[in-house]
Amino acid sequence: MAHQAESAKEDETARPADGGDLSRRPWRPYFEASLGFRNHWYPAFFSRQLAEGECRGQVMLGERILFKRIDGRVYAIEDRCAHRGVPFSVRPECYTKNTISCWYHGFTYDLRTGALVAIITDPESTLIGKVKLRSYPVEEHKNLVFAFIGDEAPHPLILDLQPGFLDEDLAISPNGEQELVKSNWRLAAENGVDASHIYIHRNSALINVARRPLPLASYFTTREGMVIDKEGAPKGVIKGAGRKTSIWETEIEGVKIESQYRPGINTDSSSATDTSLWLPCGLKVNPFPRADTMQFEWYVPNDEQSHHYIVTWGKRVQDEHQAEQFFREMDVVWKDLVVHKFNNEDVIAREAMEHFYADEDGWNQEHLYRPDMVIAEWRRLASKHNRGIQRKPGTKAGV
Amino acid sequence: MAHQAESAKEDETARPADGGDLSRRPWRPYFEASLGFRNHWYPAFFSRQLAEGECRGQVMLGERILFKRIDGRVYAIEDRCAHRGVPFSVRPECYTKNTISCWYHGFTYDLRTGALVAIITDPESTLIGKVKLRSYPVEEHKNLVFAFIGDEAPHPLILDLQPGFLDEDLAISPNGEQELVKSNWRLAAENGVDASHIYIHRNSALINVARRPLPLASYFTTREGMVIDKEGAPKGVIKGAGRKTSIWETEIEGVKIESQYRPGINTDSSSATDTSLWLPCGLKVNPFPRADTMQFEWYVPNDEQSHHYIVTWGKRVQDEHQAEQFFREMDVVWKDLVVHKFNNEDVIAREAMEHFYADEDGWNQEHLYRPDMVIAEWRRLASKHNRGIQRKPGTKAGV
Amino acid sequence: MAHQAESAKEDETARPADGGDLSRRPWRPYFEASLGFRNHWYPAFFSRQLAEGECRGQVMLGERILFKRIDGRVYAIEDRCAHRGVPFSVRPECYTKNTISCWYHGFTYDLRTGALVAIITDPESTLIGKVKLRSYPVEEHKNLVFAFIGDEAPHPLILDLQPGFLDEDLAISPNGEQELVKSNWRLAAENGVDASHIYIHRNSALINVARRPLPLASYFTTREGMVIDKEGAPKGVIKGAGRKTSIWETEIEGVKIESQYRPGINTDSSSATDTSLWLPCGLKVNPFPRADTMQFEWYVPNDEQSHHYIVTWGKRVQDEHQAEQFFREMDVVWKDLVVHKFNNEDVIAREAMEHFYADEDGWNQEHLYRPDMVIAEWRRLASKHNRGIQRKPGTKAGV
Repeated sequence: MAHQAESAKEDETARPADGGDLSRRPWRPYFEASLGFRNHWYPAFFSRQLAEGECRGQVMLGERILFKRIDGRVYAIEDRCAHRGVPFSVRPECYTKNTISCWYHGFTYDLRTGALVAIITDPESTLIGKVKLRSYPVEEHKNLVFAFIGDEAPHPLILDLQPGFLDEDLAISPNGEQELVKSNWRLAAENGVDASHIYIHRNSALINVARRPLPLASYFTTREGMVIDKEGAPKGVIKGAGRKTSIWETEIEGVKIESQYRPGINTDSSSATDTSLWLPCGLKVNPFPRADTMQFEWYVPNDEQSHHYIVTWGKRVQDEHQAEQFFREMDVVWKDLVVHKFNNEDVIAREAMEHFYADEDGWNQEHLYRPDMVIAEWRRLASKHNRGIQRKPGTKAGV
Repeated sequence: MAHQAESAKEDETARPADGGDLSRRPWRPYFEASLGFRNHWYPAFFSRQLAEGECRGQVMLGERILFKRIDGRVYAIEDRCAHRGVPFSVRPECYTKNTISCWYHGFTYDLRTGALVAIITDPESTLIGKVKLRSYPVEEHKNLVFAFIGDEAPHPLILDLQPGFLDEDLAISPNGEQELVKSNWRLAAENGVDASHIYIHRNSALINVARRPLPLASYFTTREGMVIDKEGAPKGVIKGAGRKTSIWETEIEGVKIESQYRPGINTDSSSATDTSLWLPCGLKVNPFPRADTMQFEWYVPNDEQSHHYIVTWGKRVQDEHQAEQFFREMDVVWKDLVVHKFNNEDVIAREAMEHFYADEDGWNQEHLYRPDMVIAEWRRLASKHNRGIQRKPGTKAGV
Repeated sequence: MAHQAESAKEDETARPADGGDLSRRPWRPYFEASLGFRNHWYPAFFSRQLAEGECRGQVMLGERILFKRIDGRVYAIEDRCAHRGVPFSVRPECYTKNTISCWYHGFTYDLRTGALVAIITDPESTLIGKVKLRSYPVEEHKNLVFAFIGDEAPHPLILDLQPGFLDEDLAISPNGEQELVKSNWRLAAENGVDASHIYIHRNSALINVARRPLPLASYFTTREGMVIDKEGAPKGVIKGAGRKTSIWETEIEGVKIESQYRPGINTDSSSATDTSLWLPCGLKVNPFPRADTMQFEWYVPNDEQSHHYIVTWGKRVQDEHQAEQFFREMDVVWKDLVVHKFNNEDVIAREAMEHFYADEDGWNQEHLYRPDMVIAEWRRLASKHNRGIQRKPGTKAGV
């Protein structure tokens, strides 16, 4: 395209000038991570989605995983029998509490270790005690189940979470939403932290109900404060508060175009909203949708063309009673408004980008602009601080 | 296949002996043109399909194109924002007459030039005035909108049209049909000019109603007069009038097989029909379906597996009144008969060829025969006179 | 996966130690045969599925084949016209008994030879008598139509059939089932002869009705007697009768797990069932489902991801009357029970394996165990005694 050259200067603005490197080389690992990053924690589903003794199969980062809740605790192993590769979750069969038996030949695994502990159709098999399925470290907090996907010993969960998420006084709604969205996870993550995408929400019913100022977030115009990469803490980027706002007021062919709602004018709050994106794929929007709540999102890779979109809300409370009331209000008043009347616009945007990035070399053809500096920084941060690139199962090695 | 060798002689007949070259080498560019030819004019849709101020997205030759009608005139630019590649046509939004604003971040382009003229979410962006989307030359004639797809300055439209189409006294029905057909465009074009494919129409209701002689076209048995490649004029092939007819009368196992309708015998007309195919992809059938009308078709590449099939009719008239009457008659009496009871057979044939040519190396495995000489000449002509091979977007170059 | 090494010993058990070769090298030809083996006979359909004078198109081993019954005898040729590759079966048209004419241009072929004998639209074409479609040797026995797919002169059908199938006193039900199943044919064949897969049938209604002992088959623990590869006879493997039974009785976490039905205890028969698998892809289960009947199955490759599953039953009878009664009983009492309430479990298993073997390198990632010795032997036998690997049409040669 003829406009490649002209946009270089803008790209210069979008990317920090801390080395003069205008190539996209620092983003390469990110560009390769179509299935996400390895050796990180990811949310799998809400606690309510797995009752005691039940099993649940879910694909994450291209890996088929089986979850089972045993005595309240959730365990996870590969959701494919070592024998002939069928998924247990097609017909989950458990003879005992700690095991699952493959419905096909009775290969029986301990959910706690992945170890093959019995084969019903060949009780004396020498494979017993020797074969092991990959098992996944699992933790459950704040009504969400998390799995660690990788080969390393699990890193502390708190390093892979949005800061504050595990805070004791933070009540997290157990009734968030989980949905499969047809776009690569990176397009979703970038849309989440996108400093100016708020434009698509300008007619959202939520805006009218909440009377939150538009833009919901202002953004940084320099790199300062945008990147959070302290040693021993979550790594993320923040699109900036209290700096340049993305309020719009411009002219097109003499027609004045401007934001409908503005801080302090026709809204009931002028508080700025902070939106930040954290490795491996978690978003935090604070405050949102109410002045006293925050929203958490995750974009967990399913396969290269789709991701699990998980959304929930948090509020600082003093006791159980306040928490319950908060949950109820989210369910009754806010959930539909946020999920279906607001976030739905984001889902449309993510899916509308997919063709360009998947089939038209979008990663090299795109033209980032000034508000995308946070996306540029996210790519750099993710490229630098990820713990490994996830590869497609079965492509790693031969016999 | 064992029958390759035996058919060579027939291929010799099918292809002109003007160089003794029996290889398919002269057809190579055509074989590569799965997405069509670049730097030509193509019909996009009927004028009635785009009202004043409206937008319409359409894929042509694998390129996503956005059309907008402004003050009666149609303009076209890429249907993907330079920023993140989303199609404008998902949610077309126009703040002003001459522009479209991307629904995602408010990147605003002038339809007349493709230039980025404003960014609602960053009014002072340095990208404004620098980034340009590809814009497509558009012309509108005879109730059809045409776009020029390529890099060169647009050649005269008349060179890419069936001869006579733009004649002043030729009224063209505004109510033709447009349909997406699941076959490569070349299979459609070849079926259009195919000298003997009339065989599939032998039981068509149209034949019985129109009492047109079968075959509708006779065909050339030598190259003479078949190829029209005069300098500065449309390039095409004609399947021949007044030469050998493709009336059939043969015996199979002693059973006599013959055409049902024949010129001058049980039909009301003995006039021969001329069928011709023109670069880049337009067909003219004259006269058809009535003795005083002609039919125009186009097979515009959509992607490699499908094409836009466009059909309409023309008649020479003396005034507006005659034209209106003609349009009405086509709508009421002929359209359904031609489109659904006759051309539909062609659609079936095109789709039935697709598997062979797409998945079974059909371009090299086929066996052309004598009546296919016009197809052979078409391939040679198209290979020689096209102005470029269209390549898949995003495969052209890296950063 | 970390468990590769540990399972080697088991693989050692699963594969015969007749050369110490623990690699999978002896299975390589089998691993390449995703479309099946060439130069073998395959059942196509039941006789009742093709009436006198009728045509039927079917894909086998990736080849499109047209069948026609003429004077009681079935003939087969390619189901794609040599001219432009369309399938005749889209609109079969026969002007005479021994021919089919392509609906597109009237190319007419003799079903008995594949020869192009007339072209309705060009009766004097020099292609007539020269072009030939591939024709397929066909035989019809026991209410089934068989086709030989390959380049060699057809080998005796009896060498490609389960032993005894053609025996004069064996009545074969004409009302068996044919179904397209979405898995590679090899997964189906292996499931058929699988010594321990009977586990999936443990709750089958058939088991309760038939009161047949579970397991239906015992299996070999050594290679002796497992492989049948006598010169001039069908080549197959048998999962073993009268050796180790795959009755199960084991403990998982202190819970006793055992078979519900056992030979001679709560079943009405203690006769062991022999299950054997024969090149190219036929299974024999004897006796089954009744003590006086046997079941025949075939897994005929359709394309790489699917196979035709054909099932029928045989019984030794003394006269026509007994045969008729047997057919009636199978239709009324057994067919639904066997096909839909029992074999259906096998279909689920075959399809559940497909993803692992097609997309996750399952052929190299699987872990066979002791009862799979018969599968290991089948792979070795098939690799050694097949008459050629089938390749995808159109990939064989260029122009």
